Amino acid sequence: MDNLELIRGIARSSSSRIVLLVIDGLGGLPKPGTGKTELATANTPHLDQLAARGICGLIDPVSPGITPGSGPGHLALFGYDPVSFNIGRGVLEAMGIGFDMQPGDVAARGNFCTVDDTGLVTDRRAGRISTEKGAKLCQLLDGLTIDGVKLFVRPVREHRFVVVFRGEGLSPDINDSDPQQVGVAPRVITALRPEADRMAGIASQFIARAKTILAEHHPANMVLLRGFSRHPQLPTMGEIYKLKPAAIASYPMYRGLAKLVGMEVLETGASIKDEFATLKQHYTDYDFFFLHIKGTDAAGEDGDFNRKVRVIEEVDNTLNELISMEPDVIVVTGDHSTPALLKGHSWHPLPILLYSKWCRPDGVSEFSESACVLGGLGRFPATQIMPLAMANALKLTKFGA
Amino acid sequence: MDNLELIRGIARSSSSRIVLLVIDGLGGLPKPGTGKTELATANTPHLDQLAARGICGLIDPVSPGITPGSGPGHLALFGYDPVSFNIGRGVLEAMGIGFDMQPGDVAARGNFCTVDDTGLVTDRRAGRISTEKGAKLCQLLDGLTIDGVKLFVRPVREHRFVVVFRGEGLSPDINDSDPQQVGVAPRVITALRPEADRMAGIASQFIARAKTILAEHHPANMVLLRGFSRHPQLPTMGEIYKLKPAAIASYPMYRGLAKLVGMEVLETGASIKDEFATLKQHYTDYDFFFLHIKGTDAAGEDGDFNRKVRVIEEVDNTLNELISMEPDVIVVTGDHSTPALLKGHSWHPLPILLYSKWCRPDGVSEFSESACVLGGLGRFPATQIMPLAMANALKLTKFGA
Repeated sequence: MDNLELIRGIARSSSSRIVLLVIDGLGGLPKPGTGKTELATANTPHLDQLAARGICGLIDPVSPGITPGSGPGHLALFGYDPVSFNIGRGVLEAMGIGFDMQPGDVAARGNFCTVDDTGLVTDRRAGRISTEKGAKLCQLLDGLTIDGVKLFVRPVREHRFVVVFRGEGLSPDINDSDPQQVGVAPRVITALRPEADRMAGIASQFIARAKTILAEHHPANMVLLRGFSRHPQLPTMGEIYKLKPAAIASYPMYRGLAKLVGMEVLETGASIKDEFATLKQHYTDYDFFFLHIKGTDAAGEDGDFNRKVRVIEEVDNTLNELISMEPDVIVVTGDHSTPALLKGHSWHPLPILLYSKWCRPDGVSEFSESACVLGGLGRFPATQIMPLAMANALKLTKFGA
Repeated sequence: MDNLELIRGIARSSSSRIVLLVIDGLGGLPKPGTGKTELATANTPHLDQLAARGICGLIDPVSPGITPGSGPGHLALFGYDPVSFNIGRGVLEAMGIGFDMQPGDVAARGNFCTVDDTGLVTDRRAGRISTEKGAKLCQLLDGLTIDGVKLFVRPVREHRFVVVFRGEGLSPDINDSDPQQVGVAPRVITALRPEADRMAGIASQFIARAKTILAEHHPANMVLLRGFSRHPQLPTMGEIYKLKPAAIASYPMYRGLAKLVGMEVLETGASIKDEFATLKQHYTDYDFFFLHIKGTDAAGEDGDFNRKVRVIEEVDNTLNELISMEPDVIVVTGDHSTPALLKGHSWHPLPILLYSKWCRPDGVSEFSESACVLGGLGRFPATQIMPLAMANALKLTKFGA
């Protein structure tokens, strides 16, 4: 019996309310000179006060040393083992542009590319055509039907697009056509198992049709596909936790991830203030809220230490809005670290604070990576956050007699 | 290979001695006003001294957020994964009254209940008849033989009883007859898998016989059964750890759990002093002792903070008895938290202290939840206590070459 099955057996619905505040890419690395991370640098009186009243610790989204993508990072926060429930790249890309995937759909990432007269790839990115040009080319390919399967081709950015296959009996078990190098032909798509023969045929036909349609559009005269994956069927948070969960997130990918685990995705403005206002507006309609802050991760990815500090301070400034609603449980953490010094996601564990009337406060009175090392929650896998939050909301009955 | 198999392969018998002192429901929550838990409030000079000489930490009996029953809590302490080795409710109830279950026995919890003329349940508890009345009714049903299967019907308290089925080819895989609501008929018992057909028939016949026998005993004119479970076959502690283990516990359930893992259960008086005297008396006969203190959990369940403090202090007062015997390893912990504030078991991790000549002492010099956060053992699953104790007793050989 895995953890989700264990929880499913003891979760019960109640009137208590949980708010999970996810500050994307929260964890950082110390800036040379000050020796302080983004979070430790930020002036965060409200978070510090909540840390003093609550209990703190450090989480590993996947396991020590593993740098998670946004998919695994969030699935772990929602209590789903991110290794068992791995979401394919095609599906995540489709979610990232807000494409409404249906059960059974198969998605792949696509590139417009350049091939020469003999069919060899000379540029995997077609000279990085503009986003505008990419969008126009997608329109040429969008809406095809092949052997009863409907195709959606939607632009992402520059030469990148997503293709979604919708129909009966599809399978993601086919190889990439993208050879990941130039000077060779695109790889022929074949089935990795017999059930995928039909899918391999449909994907091959799409590529042939695209080649014909794009013939006169040099440098974007061909497509490369990779990361075929099926929209996964996950047990919902309603089924497992007996919660009525809602998501407040302005970026499509996080809205998509929330939908995947059965959350209702609320319409919201994009600013931090807007998101907290959305929370207030719907506060009595749900018993679980996932509130996602994107700015920290974006600043970290840009290597902008100071901007990341400012976003954290903005969250702190708005925190009283949340505290004044008096949720039974407040969890503040992130989905992974994004240190400005690394300009990308990293493997470093994340600080977490949990406040409830029933937590056992520790000696931590500052919300920072180094203070959380000494927290009463210790260091633990992110998948255990939901059981802890549920327990503190008195929503779990005893296991065994 | 699971943990037990790993240990089984490297455990060896030796003359060293381990004492596992389980203070039931030890963990607590801070009292408003003082901010101190029961354990932190108690004056415990001997435990503090032992903590200073030993190494401390926090344990999770099942996993973070999960509130364990007494069964899972103790199995974890003995090193058995409490999720894999879940003990059914019927079996635990039988253990709780000290019924001597045999391998192959199937037990269920029973209620005397009231049904109306049309057979619908009108009171699932038969007006909570007295314990005395319940015991008399059990005598009417006890000792039946159905299709070669012997039945034992034994009182628990008020309307509650246990029924144990003993015979060939029994199975626990049948549904409850208890509908868990009034205004409906008891559920017909059916097999959940073909092998259980015979068991379903025998249980149904018992219920029919009980109905006839109880006909004139309104309001207790029917029985409801639930939680059918088989006495589990666990590998013994002797097999796994090569130990000769003994249990000192005055409550039937803990004696039953100890027996389940192959401990010899010693006769003992009920007071803390009595239990330590029993330890002294048998000290040279065994190399592992499980000594169980019940009073802390009982006080916590009653919401009596001060009484729980006093029981802890009484344990501390008696601790020199134990220390003077100079066991090679002393472990002091609990099976779960029972904060007086929650009046019941809880999910909060437990403080643990381990003393041996070979432990690596940390900076902790006070045995309390908050001090143990900073202990050298960190936070870890309770199933790892036995390997740690065995290692510190130099009873585990190297794993791998």
